[in-house]
Amino acid sequence: MNGRRITRADRAQLAMMLEVCAFPKPGNVDRCHDYPETRLEHFLASTILARPALERAERGEGSVGELILDAVENTSVHSGGNTHFGAFLLLVPLISGGDIPGACRVVAGTTVDDAVLFYKAFGKTRVRVLSNDALDVNDPGAVEEIRKREMTLYDVMLYSARNDMVAREWINGFALTRRGADLLHSNGGGSGAVVGTFIELLSTEPDTFVIKKHGKDTAWEVMKKAREVRDGIRDISGFDQECIDAGINPGSIADIIIASLYIALGEGWAWDC
Amino acid sequence: MNGRRITRADRAQLAMMLEVCAFPKPGNVDRCHDYPETRLEHFLASTILARPALERAERGEGSVGELILDAVENTSVHSGGNTHFGAFLLLVPLISGGDIPGACRVVAGTTVDDAVLFYKAFGKTRVRVLSNDALDVNDPGAVEEIRKREMTLYDVMLYSARNDMVAREWINGFALTRRGADLLHSNGGGSGAVVGTFIELLSTEPDTFVIKKHGKDTAWEVMKKAREVRDGIRDISGFDQECIDAGINPGSIADIIIASLYIALGEGWAWDC
Repeated sequence: MNGRRITRADRAQLAMMLEVCAFPKPGNVDRCHDYPETRLEHFLASTILARPALERAERGEGSVGELILDAVENTSVHSGGNTHFGAFLLLVPLISGGDIPGACRVVAGTTVDDAVLFYKAFGKTRVRVLSNDALDVNDPGAVEEIRKREMTLYDVMLYSARNDMVAREWINGFALTRRGADLLHSNGGGSGAVVGTFIELLSTEPDTFVIKKHGKDTAWEVMKKAREVRDGIRDISGFDQECIDAGINPGSIADIIIASLYIALGEGWAWDC
Repeated sequence: MNGRRITRADRAQLAMMLEVCAFPKPGNVDRCHDYPETRLEHFLASTILARPALERAERGEGSVGELILDAVENTSVHSGGNTHFGAFLLLVPLISGGDIPGACRVVAGTTVDDAVLFYKAFGKTRVRVLSNDALDVNDPGAVEEIRKREMTLYDVMLYSARNDMVAREWINGFALTRRGADLLHSNGGGSGAVVGTFIELLSTEPDTFVIKKHGKDTAWEVMKKAREVRDGIRDISGFDQECIDAGINPGSIADIIIASLYIALGEGWAWDC
């Protein structure tokens, strides 16, 4: 092992790559599973093409809103729909801030303009969201509402936190990101540790992306089954297939694991073993 | 489809990613197969980490020898051994020159210093080569010999061309690279076209990396079986498994397909379908 220094942008890209390759990850795209519209190659192309935005974040150029919009625009060159929107929402402050305490300062300092740019970025993705909401990200009137209420991007995340575990990371000091990194360390190295961490988080947290798509009951059922996998009384491959057949993809936990991998890699976690 | 302009460095990285993900590719690492020492993640980490050298090539900074050494040093941060040495040997002139005619001018203009840097780069990899050779890349005396004979890197490739199909690309105007790109176009889009192109090249060209590891007879046997796969009288999965079990990995054809993908992507070939 020699070679060059690994930058924060490298680390973010390695995290995105390692997350999507790890398998079996029940319900999500992985090395061995695609969804018809979103495939392994889409995630990896997005990983490669996000580079300029990640480098800008590392150089401290641009606000959080600009960088999230930049990352979405960098990666909107394929037909695979959103692949990393939630991940960018975590990686941008983590890269800009350097570590979790730094990221907490970055998110606390966001502005109303950041919120507006975030809505613009969201408009370019095809992420599924709850409706019946004055601040619905799909509602063109929402931006006006944001300006009127003088909500910063942090305020938007605070508002979204009850329904969105990625937004919640901004509010709770990246608690699950930290927990995921700790789990990666205690699970050893390599892709087995990624899978173990995924199952552990899935066992103990209802995935809010699953709630939005399929409702609370399904999310709790997934959690219960993940616990059975963790406890060795349910087969992971069967559970994986069951989730895929039902279109249940715990995408928010995947986003958080990317952030966890980013942190763990910076702490010397060994992906390569 | 909107988003930013795709640079040459992006295209090279997408080519490396698309090649390794395509499956089944008989005998090689792919989405569904690892070798114990070299796994999918190693190829993808190398794809990500090669970025600075690829960008330097695009900006026209550095000689071919410097850039190949740079790419090897960029990517020598994992334990997976050589992953992309042959690919860099093709991508560096293709990126620097812009297209195949440009690459031909670049390789023709290489110097003795490029040759020395190439040997230095090679020393940092674990690529298997023929021995009993005054210019053996593993022989520390070879560099002295290169200087004495005033051999440029082009001369070294000319010397290596009889035993190495990647070196041969430098001499024959990137003929197989061009043929692979044409096959990609005629095979349609997406990973199916990559597999089809791999099988077609494997059917008609003895892989020189297989010759170096296993001898000519094995390489011809592989070619014959690949032809049977192409003609629909042999199952690709069984052939794949057979190659993997015997450690037969046609790595030089994989390197050439990366170069073909780089060219085809620049000509509008659709990876995303």
